[in-house]
Amino acid sequence: MRVDGVSMRTIWPVGAGVVRIIDQTRLPHDLATIDLGTIEQAATAIKSMQVRGAPLIGATAAFGVALAMAADASDAALEQAIGILLATRPTAVNLRWALERCRREIGALPPAERAAAAWKLAAAVCDEDVAINRAIGRFGLELIKKSLPRGRPVNILTHCNAGWLATVDVGTATAAIYAAHDCGIPVHVWVDETRPRNQGASLTAWELAHHGVPHTVIVDNAGGHLMQHGMVDLCIVGTDRTTAAGDVCNKIGTYLKALAARDNGVPFYAAVPGPSIDWNLSDGVKEIPIEQRDASEVTHISGWSNDDALTTVRLTPKDTPAANYGFDVTPARLMTGLITDRGVCPATREGLLSLFPEQRCA
Amino acid sequence: MRVDGVSMRTIWPVGAGVVRIIDQTRLPHDLATIDLGTIEQAATAIKSMQVRGAPLIGATAAFGVALAMAADASDAALEQAIGILLATRPTAVNLRWALERCRREIGALPPAERAAAAWKLAAAVCDEDVAINRAIGRFGLELIKKSLPRGRPVNILTHCNAGWLATVDVGTATAAIYAAHDCGIPVHVWVDETRPRNQGASLTAWELAHHGVPHTVIVDNAGGHLMQHGMVDLCIVGTDRTTAAGDVCNKIGTYLKALAARDNGVPFYAAVPGPSIDWNLSDGVKEIPIEQRDASEVTHISGWSNDDALTTVRLTPKDTPAANYGFDVTPARLMTGLITDRGVCPATREGLLSLFPEQRCA
Repeated sequence: MRVDGVSMRTIWPVGAGVVRIIDQTRLPHDLATIDLGTIEQAATAIKSMQVRGAPLIGATAAFGVALAMAADASDAALEQAIGILLATRPTAVNLRWALERCRREIGALPPAERAAAAWKLAAAVCDEDVAINRAIGRFGLELIKKSLPRGRPVNILTHCNAGWLATVDVGTATAAIYAAHDCGIPVHVWVDETRPRNQGASLTAWELAHHGVPHTVIVDNAGGHLMQHGMVDLCIVGTDRTTAAGDVCNKIGTYLKALAARDNGVPFYAAVPGPSIDWNLSDGVKEIPIEQRDASEVTHISGWSNDDALTTVRLTPKDTPAANYGFDVTPARLMTGLITDRGVCPATREGLLSLFPEQRCA
Repeated sequence: MRVDGVSMRTIWPVGAGVVRIIDQTRLPHDLATIDLGTIEQAATAIKSMQVRGAPLIGATAAFGVALAMAADASDAALEQAIGILLATRPTAVNLRWALERCRREIGALPPAERAAAAWKLAAAVCDEDVAINRAIGRFGLELIKKSLPRGRPVNILTHCNAGWLATVDVGTATAAIYAAHDCGIPVHVWVDETRPRNQGASLTAWELAHHGVPHTVIVDNAGGHLMQHGMVDLCIVGTDRTTAAGDVCNKIGTYLKALAARDNGVPFYAAVPGPSIDWNLSDGVKEIPIEQRDASEVTHISGWSNDDALTTVRLTPKDTPAANYGFDVTPARLMTGLITDRGVCPATREGLLSLFPEQRCA
């Protein structure tokens, strides 16, 4: 997407054996980049959430394997790299999907060919992600057109950041929003701030502002009230893993918004790239591992002080215990549908298989 | 309640014509007090949320009228005082209830008697609040006993601060929690941080810690996930206004937790002091005015820096638009019941009238 007139992706190769990322822990204040030259640096970037968002995690992992292969292209090094990267974040399935693809495609080659092939594969994963998101955008645009009220912008609520910053480019949940905005449909986005890491208030607000899409940040508590009062026409969220039965795992709090949408007759969709579907799982609430992160992400928060210094402050009394679950699962029954890169379908096994028929025989 | 061994209320008279309050904007860091000597100071304390919580707002308003009467006991001054105080916060009905009582009881007296009578009335409002909350605690304790699981503490989720800091003493939602803890029932409280003003993370966590009640702070997004996984046995929240039909207006985000409780079969109760019931209203979603506060409460947050200085930081990009609705309404159909000072009843008109039969003829 364009940032102050310049086209950017979230991750791109620069020269031999170096991949550059936007350091998302510095946004919205600084648009800083970091160069990754080793598998360890790639793993740290994922773990520390310098890159985040299921699709971007997958792309970064593919580059991580390529960086590992440049140093040592042995079978052992390949397996070690996959192990290191797989351990960084447990919930998003794109990570496993990208690494399994690396194992399959790179592992099959003689060691001498692996470094170059892994680099090429990582670039392909990135390009495919962008193509997937553009397809999601086209299908989602039709839904937005259907929801368009007379005489005012369509109000879309989103949770967390499933924007271009969560992917290589374009975004998943935002793909349709950008598509609508770019073709002149008046759109207004309610941006959930998304505690505890505030990816909505920082990243989604930042990227919508830079693209010129009207938006308003709200606390995560507010969406139900807005829906009760007719102020939301449509909800679109991302997903870190969607089961074969259509259960949608996404940032903690998504489930609460889906409940409010159902209670108020507001359509609630997830934007689901094919690689986010976990065909091995059915019951998302029981089966998807939910990452627990450090309590300090709840008890402390970072922001910018009056003199524009990034400052961390404590929100609770000293030594207050806190729990920090990163994701929740919205049962398929609460989803109006899934916007995939192959079309929109009901959040059911049959719905997904109708678009991904090759999985019937997998 | 006791703070480090010392019994305290949130508001108490000190000497002639001065009432002292805990400055809740300084908690949990400083236990500071402020002396109010004029009606204007009382109004500012309510508006700036140095005092907050529906019952405490009512008590502070009664003292505000007493301070006004000490300066000028004319009819005009009484009406002016009521007008100033009524304009401070629009949602809580206790404010109107306390002021109407002042008008009725003080306005009926000759001006020469008003100052002393108003002071006495304000003290009575405070004592009655404590008695009401103790009664709520007794009835709520029975519900907790029913929810007690074998072999582990009962997990109670609460939203915002309906603790003793929201009242004169004891609290409403916390009344039963303190009663259970004090009689040896093992209790653990999930404390919603309650954005944007974080009354849960700051005030509820502070008062539970000082009373020794085990608790864990969570982001507002987390409650649904906890309920899906059997980690919540019971929800108890406060209310700023409950309609005659049982719709419960409370801090923004309460409605989302009620939806999750219903979806997971978790009992969901509001602690409802008699003065919080608005017998004039039926449809809470349509009829209760919802306060909109400054956007800066969403875009900025205050906390304590490493060197223990109260510091405000910006969470969003500069100039990000934000909306800030203070309350929402949970429809009666989502409430398991209402814990009033006269007993527990269904959240229905008949349920409430069975406990407040005098309202049948009002």
